[in-house]
Amino acid sequence: MKDITAAVLVIGDEILSGRTKDKNIGYIAECFSNIGVYCKEVRIVPDQEEKIIGALNELRNEYTYVMTTGGIGPTHDDITADCVAKAFGVGISENNDAINMLLERIPLEDLNESRRRMARIPHGATLIENNVSKAPGFQIENVFVMAGVPAVMQAMLDVVITRIDKGQKLFTCNISTNIKEGDIADILRDIQKNNPSVMIGSYPYYTDEGYGANIVCRAKKLDELKNIASMIESSLSVIGNVEVGDFE
Amino acid sequence: MKDITAAVLVIGDEILSGRTKDKNIGYIAECFSNIGVYCKEVRIVPDQEEKIIGALNELRNEYTYVMTTGGIGPTHDDITADCVAKAFGVGISENNDAINMLLERIPLEDLNESRRRMARIPHGATLIENNVSKAPGFQIENVFVMAGVPAVMQAMLDVVITRIDKGQKLFTCNISTNIKEGDIADILRDIQKNNPSVMIGSYPYYTDEGYGANIVCRAKKLDELKNIASMIESSLSVIGNVEVGDFE
Repeated sequence: MKDITAAVLVIGDEILSGRTKDKNIGYIAECFSNIGVYCKEVRIVPDQEEKIIGALNELRNEYTYVMTTGGIGPTHDDITADCVAKAFGVGISENNDAINMLLERIPLEDLNESRRRMARIPHGATLIENNVSKAPGFQIENVFVMAGVPAVMQAMLDVVITRIDKGQKLFTCNISTNIKEGDIADILRDIQKNNPSVMIGSYPYYTDEGYGANIVCRAKKLDELKNIASMIESSLSVIGNVEVGDFE
Repeated sequence: MKDITAAVLVIGDEILSGRTKDKNIGYIAECFSNIGVYCKEVRIVPDQEEKIIGALNELRNEYTYVMTTGGIGPTHDDITADCVAKAFGVGISENNDAINMLLERIPLEDLNESRRRMARIPHGATLIENNVSKAPGFQIENVFVMAGVPAVMQAMLDVVITRIDKGQKLFTCNISTNIKEGDIADILRDIQKNNPSVMIGSYPYYTDEGYGANIVCRAKKLDELKNIASMIESSLSVIGNVEVGDFE
């Protein structure tokens, strides 16, 4: 089975200035891991047309799916929809279904020019509804355009997930240790070398109680994962405390 | 004065799988904003040689500085230093100063092969010390290679900041409102159009108490910023509550 891959494109000056801390990348990444879609790259770009179009065209040609967040509101700095249309070389205009979605929340007399902009959708795109703000995102080919506000993005992602292909979820096991990373690196390197189908990652931590490393193993086959976890447990338990977590 | 720009390159499967939530991007972005360095792009790539080298070469040619985080520990999945050497087309070998830094924390008898790998530094690079783990990062030309563990990264960034050019910090003012974004977008668009030297961003929020928008204005000149803030305040206070924050 071919791997299903994805990239996330975060659009917004406020993330790059540090004023707003992104909460969407980790959420999408974790959600995709759970359905066997491998997030392979993330980019954060400013609200600038050439940057958005350039990144979008690179990513959509390279990965199965691209998720964008941010820049689809009613204000002048929301230019994502226009950039997506340009990236695909299609037109963009007000979409009746999108207007009707907005009217579920906004009284007709409040549907001013700015709000109508949120209903401008690239030609050929399919809407992505959401129950929080009602203003829709949209899908065009393999690109899913979502809001930046986390609650709205999450509502849209629930819809997106029903529309994309799922892959084979990796089985994962976390092995926590109180051993310094430098004391286990040689052992892990050998185990990794002899077992290339299991991915072994090592993540050091520093806390007030001391420091150590967590080892995360991921594999497509559960029996291979269990085998490696037991190998790591027996190799490391002579050096320090080792706790093998659940196989998820 | 020419703008000083930067990009951040985050290296690590654990961020892309969602297991670890990145804490470095926002920290670096905020820190750079405060010294007038504009963070213009962020990329997150997996622990794969061709991805790291490709992203690094693109970013270092485009921006004044590139900050990398992650992948410089002692384990097999730490391949950043080798990738940086390849990206620059230089050799890499054990660096005596780096070994001495490691020995400040690690007894000589514990300096095994894996730990020595942390002292492998691309030729022509300058070390970046840190007081948390002692294992150094390094600078080569306009690229600064730092650890992924936030406490260690932050210690390294303190050093990096003493070495880079500072730009002109933008003065910033946050204007909070309880007005829906769609009700202020037309006004903001006009003010923005007539005042291109001030950057006006609008960020909607949704809370249990209701929703509204915060407006963030940034400018190189304080008097221009004050002028715009007062213009926005008087335009919006007829619609709802408006609170102009400090000029920072």
